[in-house]
Amino acid sequence: MDAAEFRRRGKEMVDFVADYQENIEHRRVYPDVEPGYLRSMIPSEAPLEPESYEDVLRDVDRVIMPGVTHWLSPHFYAYYANSTSFPSILADLLSSGIGTIGFTWAANPACSELETVMLDWLGKMLQLPEDFLSETQGQGGGVIEGTASEATLMALLSARLKTVKCVQESDPQRSEADIISKLIAYTSEEAHSSVEKASIIGGVVIRMVPTDEHFSVRAETLEKMVAEDKATGFIPFFFCATLGTTPCCAFDKIDELGPICNAENIWMHIDAAYAGCAFICPEFRPLLNGVERLQLQLRLPASKTDREAHEAIDESRSNFLRQIGFDCSAMWVKKSADLTRAFQMDPEYLKHENQGSGLVKDYMHWGIPMARRFRSLKLWFVFRMYGLSGLQAFIRKHVELAKTFEILVRDDNNFEICAEVVMGLVCFRLKGSDELNKALLKQITRTGKIYLVPCRLRGRFVLRFVVCGRTTELRHIQEAWKHITELSSKLLQNLFDHEGKEN
Amino acid sequence: MDAAEFRRRGKEMVDFVADYQENIEHRRVYPDVEPGYLRSMIPSEAPLEPESYEDVLRDVDRVIMPGVTHWLSPHFYAYYANSTSFPSILADLLSSGIGTIGFTWAANPACSELETVMLDWLGKMLQLPEDFLSETQGQGGGVIEGTASEATLMALLSARLKTVKCVQESDPQRSEADIISKLIAYTSEEAHSSVEKASIIGGVVIRMVPTDEHFSVRAETLEKMVAEDKATGFIPFFFCATLGTTPCCAFDKIDELGPICNAENIWMHIDAAYAGCAFICPEFRPLLNGVERLQLQLRLPASKTDREAHEAIDESRSNFLRQIGFDCSAMWVKKSADLTRAFQMDPEYLKHENQGSGLVKDYMHWGIPMARRFRSLKLWFVFRMYGLSGLQAFIRKHVELAKTFEILVRDDNNFEICAEVVMGLVCFRLKGSDELNKALLKQITRTGKIYLVPCRLRGRFVLRFVVCGRTTELRHIQEAWKHITELSSKLLQNLFDHEGKEN
Repeated sequence: MDAAEFRRRGKEMVDFVADYQENIEHRRVYPDVEPGYLRSMIPSEAPLEPESYEDVLRDVDRVIMPGVTHWLSPHFYAYYANSTSFPSILADLLSSGIGTIGFTWAANPACSELETVMLDWLGKMLQLPEDFLSETQGQGGGVIEGTASEATLMALLSARLKTVKCVQESDPQRSEADIISKLIAYTSEEAHSSVEKASIIGGVVIRMVPTDEHFSVRAETLEKMVAEDKATGFIPFFFCATLGTTPCCAFDKIDELGPICNAENIWMHIDAAYAGCAFICPEFRPLLNGVERLQLQLRLPASKTDREAHEAIDESRSNFLRQIGFDCSAMWVKKSADLTRAFQMDPEYLKHENQGSGLVKDYMHWGIPMARRFRSLKLWFVFRMYGLSGLQAFIRKHVELAKTFEILVRDDNNFEICAEVVMGLVCFRLKGSDELNKALLKQITRTGKIYLVPCRLRGRFVLRFVVCGRTTELRHIQEAWKHITELSSKLLQNLFDHEGKEN
Repeated sequence: MDAAEFRRRGKEMVDFVADYQENIEHRRVYPDVEPGYLRSMIPSEAPLEPESYEDVLRDVDRVIMPGVTHWLSPHFYAYYANSTSFPSILADLLSSGIGTIGFTWAANPACSELETVMLDWLGKMLQLPEDFLSETQGQGGGVIEGTASEATLMALLSARLKTVKCVQESDPQRSEADIISKLIAYTSEEAHSSVEKASIIGGVVIRMVPTDEHFSVRAETLEKMVAEDKATGFIPFFFCATLGTTPCCAFDKIDELGPICNAENIWMHIDAAYAGCAFICPEFRPLLNGVERLQLQLRLPASKTDREAHEAIDESRSNFLRQIGFDCSAMWVKKSADLTRAFQMDPEYLKHENQGSGLVKDYMHWGIPMARRFRSLKLWFVFRMYGLSGLQAFIRKHVELAKTFEILVRDDNNFEICAEVVMGLVCFRLKGSDELNKALLKQITRTGKIYLVPCRLRGRFVLRFVVCGRTTELRHIQEAWKHITELSSKLLQNLFDHEGKEN
């Protein structure tokens, strides 16, 4: 395919994408395919000679589309969907077209520098304390990680290394392995599974902190656990707080948890992968309050002396903003050296003359993968094409639609709301057994008209309804509720008939 | 931006990308900017109100392009560049347009299933043993990781977990921490720095294996180190072989190393991030020989009994094929459960009814990040639009051009070739001091006409010339050599004049 053909095919693909998104709501949101459907539809090996582009595109319609779960559909209410936006798609196309791999500054200065400035823009939109910004020439700064899981893992691994060094400063004889075996991480029992995964990768014990009646981690609970663990010779080193948990969008009380982490030399990482983007609205920003109170002293854990050693780091990150689409998870740290020192490698082939200048950022030291796409272009395009006001409007619309859905649920005596509706997530269930609710969800999934996933709250099976779509409007919410109540009425009727027969 | 505007802007962007790539060779390949150049060119915060698309696109030319290192330029000979191709860009655009996040099968069945089949296609192109394919309904299969670094890390972490479990089976009292402190990984002294990084993340010791005169790891060297380490109570558990090292494209002798790893219960991971793609050509496939001889028995390390326990895994992976562009690193394993069991999490919100069927793959368990783009589309488009023959032609052309460059270097008495030219990399230097060669590279970088990076071979500073570009032709190689010799002649003349004065 030469450039002339690319011009033609590329424009067709732009229309294909536009058509797809314009007509997406008429598609079945959850596909009607059986496991293994695809293999028999295509050859078992790659062709020896080139095929025509027409054939490939025809197969997209024939083979791919019937098996796609349509994340961008207004009928998609599952997980915490990252929507995307047209400016983000354009920026991604530009990124593919430039085809850069930006591991060091020299590998692409524009890629490295735009990332630094965009994370400052975003930090300011979130009203992060200045310590987290790069422009203040302090020690902090932001980075784009591929996913929230990677951000949490980076934080935990960096905290592990830092704590090992701290302990060894006061007790040089102690081996790394021995120290690591005594480390304890903490997170909410409601935290995302990626936090536990990070602890397994890091080879450290993690304890799940029980939550209060609002599903929030409170200071006294964490404090008690930390005290217990210290008393038995363990070293508390890491706490991952969540702002907007996956099951029910609960908020840990970071304003009371921060001081404990400071006092106990615990690295606090704030996972705000879902709710973080809402903090650009002044009315939601108070949920992030406390981030500025986190102290900058780390005393040696398990040390006899109490001298100051390193600076603590706190972080906040998010799959920021939903308009940006996937693979762009922002993370900030107060002291970037704690990240970069952890895993810095400098082979000859990656050296460049501006390396030691302190003026450039080699982002390969800030994450697990070394190579990276030019992702800051997405942030730049989206921030400019929407403006802060446009992005705020999106957040507010989603929250408003969720509140509308909440009212519909509350007005129906067969249903109950299972957690406070703070943002775009509504947790609800039929009054009755888990089996009944599982049967309802199964019906919803089989019908394929809307797509939801469940969660467990206090052991009960609960349905999650997340408003995240760029094109989701009031009518979609109303239709969805009508559909749910129709299915549930049938279920309840069957149950009633069945019970009638049994009596 | 609505769909109508996206249609217009998207088509403009397609032309922008086509124009960029068509005219790229007239650009300075390495940018002439100072660290920090970008910040002053754009505002210090995001706009409150939306800006016009024209302004954004104008700034791409004004702000971004002057700071880009042009990886797709035919004058780019640095690192091991991943080129990209028009079919890959189209597939990426489609992936952005669908906007899916495929962590489980249910999250997008097409995404999960196409990945499985494409890795089989690629495995067959590479003539991998059947154990590595999914279609054989065995225990093996392939996965797309974001980067080669992540693939190596996943392998090392899975091997760590597997070894800990093995040891604990025979010695249940032994703690995980104690076992991990005794684990030893091995890799070539010439291996990519990401292998060492993986060992730091995994918290295990790594030993660098010295290479022979061809920069290859040989069996007897590894065998000796393993014996030494076992004698002092350590547990050898992981060896990362390299086929196509980063400094000079050397090949570890996997045909002789495999049997040792089998005998010693060492998980062998083959890093072929650069050279792997060439194994689709019959003339290069012998370099992968030995992969089929790896055994399927793992005996308990440090165990008194010698009973069989698990199956060993070997892997081969590559940033496969250069036409596919970045963030698509293929990895195969013989027993996928060793990967997936290592870090499997199953929260309620990720469960789906086909989970336990054995028919579907939830790729979130196969890597570090849980979420993933629809990357197999790139493989599908590229395989079909080029055909195996077209992809082989690319590899052969690059190798041929590299051989041509080698001849140019050999014909010049001022220069020497520093390592055997097997594929697209030529390692060369001016006969003389490291300082002289550093001065030459500095001149090359400053001039910005071509871009190379250095390496160290046996302590000496060496220049690397990599032919990887989709559009690199004979005339570019000739121009590059002319440029290098012009700069070196000046340098040598200056040196001569200077020495003349001193005498």
